[in-house]
Amino acid sequence: MANQSAQLTDVFYALADPTRRAIVGALGRGPQTVSALAAPFEMSLPSFMKHLSVLERSGVVRTHKTGRVRTCELVPRSLTPAERWIAQQRALWEARTERMARFVETLHEEETARDPVRRPRR
Amino acid sequence: MANQSAQLTDVFYALADPTRRAIVGALGRGPQTVSALAAPFEMSLPSFMKHLSVLERSGVVRTHKTGRVRTCELVPRSLTPAERWIAQQRALWEARTERMARFVETLHEEETARDPVRRPRR
Repeated sequence: MANQSAQLTDVFYALADPTRRAIVGALGRGPQTVSALAAPFEMSLPSFMKHLSVLERSGVVRTHKTGRVRTCELVPRSLTPAERWIAQQRALWEARTERMARFVETLHEEETARDPVRRPRR
Repeated sequence: MANQSAQLTDVFYALADPTRRAIVGALGRGPQTVSALAAPFEMSLPSFMKHLSVLERSGVVRTHKTGRVRTCELVPRSLTPAERWIAQQRALWEARTERMARFVETLHEEETARDPVRRPRR
């Protein structure tokens, strides 16, 4: 559980940067070498590598080296817990909104039943 | 667009902390005063307020003061862009996987058509 929370923290932190999100977007189209992946970004290679290592630590991106070439690929299932967490919060909130709406409706029905003047005309 | 990206950065950063995620979870059950919200967390009030202000800056939480009491509530639609962004990445990746699978299938069909020995027996 603590592990899962730490993983969520790492994934959300990895996504909290426009460069890192752009890297994820680029890798969604398929694996790429580090140099091809870095080319469109206007920053030094060391800065780019720092972003890449944040993504790698979070488990969102995986890299492997063949000879002198390092290739990066997305680990799509790594995003599932983050997506699920947000969806759960929404479900929780929507359930609450529905309960509230039902409560207000019941209140209204009780009031109109008690007070004949407020009863809607047929 | 730049604004939307900055908002995504703020929301993902806000969610990149277990205390802040717990605050979002608690507020999913309904609005709460700052003191009631802070009570279950084992930290100083100033530390708690820092987390709350990160959530407020990101737009995930809204607060308002009535007299001396500050009440916090969730802004559920604030999570939508983050949820959508992750879903888009998944869709992009799934489309690519499907294209790959179709390509491999076509390749296999072409090979078996060319080489009668490899044709499956009926």
